[in-house]
Parts: sequence; structure tokens; C-alpha cells
Amino acid sequence: MNLITSSPFWSTGIDKLKAYVPGEQPQTDGWVKLNTNEMPYPPSLRALQAIRDVVNEKLRLYPDPSGNALKAAIATQYGLSPDHVFLGNGSDEVLGHIFLGLLKHEQPILYPDISYSFYPVWCGLYGIDFRQVPLTERFEVDVADYKVPNGGIVLPNPNAPTGIALPLSKLRELLEANRTSVVVIDEAYVDFGAESAVKLIPEFDNLLVVHTLSKSRALAGLRVGYAMGHPALIEGLARVKDSFNSYPMDRLALAGAQVAIEDTVYFEKITHAVMQSREWLTAEMAKLGFETLPSSANFIFSHHPRHPAAWLLAQLRERRILVRYFAKPRIDGHLRISIGTQHECEALVAALQQIVSAEPTVEVSA
Amino acid sequence: MNLITSSPFWSTGIDKLKAYVPGEQPQTDGWVKLNTNEMPYPPSLRALQAIRDVVNEKLRLYPDPSGNALKAAIATQYGLSPDHVFLGNGSDEVLGHIFLGLLKHEQPILYPDISYSFYPVWCGLYGIDFRQVPLTERFEVDVADYKVPNGGIVLPNPNAPTGIALPLSKLRELLEANRTSVVVIDEAYVDFGAESAVKLIPEFDNLLVVHTLSKSRALAGLRVGYAMGHPALIEGLARVKDSFNSYPMDRLALAGAQVAIEDTVYFEKITHAVMQSREWLTAEMAKLGFETLPSSANFIFSHHPRHPAAWLLAQLRERRILVRYFAKPRIDGHLRISIGTQHECEALVAALQQIVSAEPTVEVSA
Repeated sequence: MNLITSSPFWSTGIDKLKAYVPGEQPQTDGWVKLNTNEMPYPPSLRALQAIRDVVNEKLRLYPDPSGNALKAAIATQYGLSPDHVFLGNGSDEVLGHIFLGLLKHEQPILYPDISYSFYPVWCGLYGIDFRQVPLTERFEVDVADYKVPNGGIVLPNPNAPTGIALPLSKLRELLEANRTSVVVIDEAYVDFGAESAVKLIPEFDNLLVVHTLSKSRALAGLRVGYAMGHPALIEGLARVKDSFNSYPMDRLALAGAQVAIEDTVYFEKITHAVMQSREWLTAEMAKLGFETLPSSANFIFSHHPRHPAAWLLAQLRERRILVRYFAKPRIDGHLRISIGTQHECEALVAALQQIVSAEPTVEVSA
Repeated sequence: MNLITSSPFWSTGIDKLKAYVPGEQPQTDGWVKLNTNEMPYPPSLRALQAIRDVVNEKLRLYPDPSGNALKAAIATQYGLSPDHVFLGNGSDEVLGHIFLGLLKHEQPILYPDISYSFYPVWCGLYGIDFRQVPLTERFEVDVADYKVPNGGIVLPNPNAPTGIALPLSKLRELLEANRTSVVVIDEAYVDFGAESAVKLIPEFDNLLVVHTLSKSRALAGLRVGYAMGHPALIEGLARVKDSFNSYPMDRLALAGAQVAIEDTVYFEKITHAVMQSREWLTAEMAKLGFETLPSSANFIFSHHPRHPAAWLLAQLRERRILVRYFAKPRIDGHLRISIGTQHECEALVAALQQIVSAEPTVEVSA
């Protein structure tokens, strides 16, 4: 906790910013790390080789500021043209530019009350008015709730931290009802069982689909994300990016990301393995009394009727297993658990068997 | 040139943004590239090895969001503590966050009229009021011109594209006269013969010094920059960064940058070589009639009394030599020439000998 809370040298409002707090990244080994939704399997070996191939004297030169080769690879993958693609330093940077460049209008933007907790942070940073739309009691998005005047809509699909996905028919309904607003579908987790909205891009000039290489491509450490949409949306983002940082992606990230996108065989193998472990883990945890929302992501959102989530978190941490807990209304009884390797899922189940067979003996604060 | 100039989906003002235009990055080989002030010598071999060592399965994990190991290496290098250091994706990202986080006040900020052309771009992006302070007739900064009420001061030292440096005594005078404003000294080029203001940090809580690894460390392709200053300034920047993108630097950049900072022997060797070639090139071009400002940077800013700069640019380009030209008042008679290897400098002189011995026969537009 930093103790400096204000300074006359700060721009107006900086003292009031509430920054995003990412999940813990332990700097020691020996943890079962199920807290930040990383891929438990290694990146594509071909992608790693592509990175090694560019660790050379050319690092003295600036990268291609447009990242044209990577844009072309992404466009080919999704049947688009490169002018439908915007690149960024992780999908967080892409989303930051989207908020500043496309979502600051007179009307407030809409996003779910339970969702990626970075959305209100960008609104705070850029002074964007927003309204959080409550999920239903079953933690689902009801697109009917988004048929009101708005300055834009941001919807993760699958949603996080619930893992619940909307079908394409519902996204189409949302898009048709909001032709004059930008609708951002944040598909960070789409490759684990949901339907991508990419195929709706030719029909809707207000649709922007955001992807990351940090989850399904196993490259969280490389910092690459991208958005796909109508060229007018992409051009708006390019203007913001080129007014902020000409070269946000280094030569290594550009080279590695391109091959990771192209290596579809490996991609399908590891995403399939995660989905299999997710189903196994959900079933095993059900035997221990956990109630888990139906997940189309690489994590599950689970609740135990008899054990406080914060207590479970602490118990798991003592066993060097990290999961994520959000001390927020409606979801402070749940744990978000990233899907590990099958071996890690088995270790988690073994730990939970120990933990839930004992009753909590002390009050544990978050 | 992109033809999309507006969209109802863009946030207010995006249509009016004037983006920064970086120097050309040719995607083919065979150019003598003296246009973007890169280091002509390769990066530290130790830094390249450090990068290779982390091209492994851990790329599936997010990087350390704080970059603590790199901060510690920088702090050690400059006799500071890590809480004096802020990291970013190139010094452009660092400067972008500085403009948003520390330079948006009621009074306009001040910077030279002839300077890094990204400064007005960030002002435009974030709605920051500014006043450009003219350089003297000899293209020098007169610190007396900065003794007026202001919301902050940004000064590159050495300045770009002139290459002229202020001595530390003048920077001290500037800082003493502006105790209530943040004074940003942009030291992108300081390692080629100017005095760093870092040693003034313990005395001035309003001083922020910005460095990049893109020039003297030969790592433009890795995207690493940093700022050093009082912990209260650093905390303000951290709040902006953590409200924008938790992990702007990937695992490869963090590892390579740390060793590049530590490898001072190689750093001194290549910066010294560039300074030697700069003096040789300046002298040789003087024989051809060029007038060159006294440079403490890895580039020179030169003018030929009989040949238009835009014509020289085109003539050099025909010979596959890239230099930089700015079609702006006061400086449209100058070329900015990055210092290459000694061999590249010799190739440039040979080409200029051919070019200036002929008279321009046609009017050439920029």
C-alpha cells in the first residue's frame, strides 16, 4: 500500500483515481497458480522459435509501427482484411484506447454490474459516464436491459468472472437494437467454448470484437491483444494510438504473436484440454458441495453453501494454491478458479476435499 | 493516407486529433537508415542472451506488473531507490502518462517551439493547454524565457532536432525558478555528451527525468523507457499507468532491459563510437559547405546555404540513404541526420559530395 495519496504536482483528479488491481503474480516458484486465468500449457513451440529468431541485432531498430504482418495474419485467420484489425499491448491497452476513442459521448455507456473490474477504471481515467446494468438473479446478461439510450455498450462474452456466455442470436439482437452505439464484445475467453461475434462484423458497422493472446494463446507474458471491426472504428482507434505511443508492440511480440495466431493445430489442442479439465473439475467440486455457474471460459465461478469464500481462499493459499476472490456485493460468496493442467485440477480437488471436510473455526476477513 | 476522417461512433474530438508521424521504418533491407536516431551498433550481447533465456514456457504467465527487478537495476545505476523509478513501454508511453498525470493544470505548460513534435500531440489527446516558447535565433533554449507562471515545463536536453544541450547550471536555474511546477527533462539523447539532471533529483521534488533504451542502449525494438524523480511524482504516474494497462512491459523487455542497463562497459563503448563519428561527420560536411549546430546527441541538424533541404532529402533517398526533414517554420532548411556507423557516415559523405557538387536543376517539393 503506497502512502502517498495526493500531491500538488498531480493533475486534477489523479488523487481520486481508483486503479485496477491485477491478481497476484508470485515471484517465487512452487505455487499452483489458478488466480489470473492464464493458460496452464506452454505457448506454441513454433511461436517461441519465431521469437528466438528475432532476438538479434535488429532490436536496435524500431518495430513496424503498424504491425502489418501481424494484422495480415489475424485478418486471414478471421476472414477479414487488415484494415479491420487494430493491435495493442495486451487487450487492456486496446480496451483503454476504445474507451477514450469510441465510448465518450453524451449518454452513459452500459456494461454489466458484475463484469471485468477494469471497465469503471477506464471510465474514471477518461471521465466517461457509465451505468452498470445488473445481471439477472442467475448471473446472466439479459439483452432486453440494454435497449435504452446509451453512449456505447461493453459486454464480455463469456462474461467474467461468471464464465457465462450469450449465444450469437442474443448478440445479434443486442446489435440490432443499438445501431447508433458502438457495441464492444470483449472476447478474452471466447475460445473456451463460446461463439465469436466476429462473423457478425460484415453486418454491423457498430460492432467491435476484442481478443487477447493472454488466455487461449498462452502468451500473457508477451502482451498482445487486438480489436476487429469496421475500418471506421479501427481508424478512430488508430488516431488515439498514434497520439499516445507510435510503437506499443516490440519486435519480439509482433513476431511471436503472428506465429501463435497461425498455429491453429496447437491452439485447438490446448483449448480443448482446458475445456475437458473444466468439466472434470466442475463435476468433482459438485461432489464436495460446490455450486458452479455454467462456464464457457477457462475459469469457473463457484460457491460453497457452507464455507465463506474468503476462508476458502485463505485455506487454499496456505496450501500454496492461488485462486481469486472479489470482496464485492453479490459475488463475495464466490471464488474464481482458473482451470489449470489436469494435474493442477487434481491437486485443487485434493486440497478442497481436506478443507471442506473441516468446519471453519475462525472468522477470516478478506 | 487514410481516407476516413470522421465517424459518429468516434468520441468527441477524435476527428481533430493530429497524430504524431514517426520516421519511416523501411520493411526492406539495403538502406542506410539515418532517419530515426537509432543506435547503429547492435544491442549488448549480454542483453540479447538475457532475452533468449526467458523465451520459454513462462511466457504463458503475466509479467511482474511492477517490474521490480528492472526498477532496482535502474535505481542502482543512478544512485536512487526503486521508488524513484517509473517504467513504461518506451519513453513515449512514459511521456504520455506524464502529460495526463502531471501536466494538466489551470496554467498552460511550456516547451520550446522547436522540439519533439509529440508534445503538442499529447496536449491535443488530453486537452492540455500549452504555450510554445521560441528558441533563440541560434536555436538555443534561454531559461529566462521560462520564468513565467506555468502548469509545467517540458524540455528535452539535448533538445531535438537541434542537438543542442543546456549545462546543468542552467537546468538548476530553471528548477529553482519553478518550484511549484513539474519540470520534465526529456533526456532521450543525454548519453551522447550532455550532463544528466538525475543528480539534481535529491534537491528538487518537482524534477522528473525521462530516459529511453531506444537510443544509447540500442534497443528501440524492445520498447522500454523510464522516468526518475521524487516518489510523489512516481506515485502519480503509477496511478495513471494502473488505470490504463497493468502490464505494459512484457517478460522479454523486462529481462533484456535489466541487463542492458547493467552492461555499462558496452554502453560506454558504443556511445563513445557514435560521438567520435559525429565529430568526424560534422567536420567532413563542413568541408562541403554544411552548417551544423553543435550537437550533444546521436544526430546532427545541418543546413546547406545553397541547397534546399527537401531536395537534399530526395537526392539522398535516391541513393538509398534515409535522413529526416521537417516541413515546419524556422527548420525547413535543415536536415536531421542520425549518426550511423563510421562506414555509414563515410557513405553519406560520399553521397553528399556527389550531390552538392551538382546544382539543383528542378524545384522539388517536400
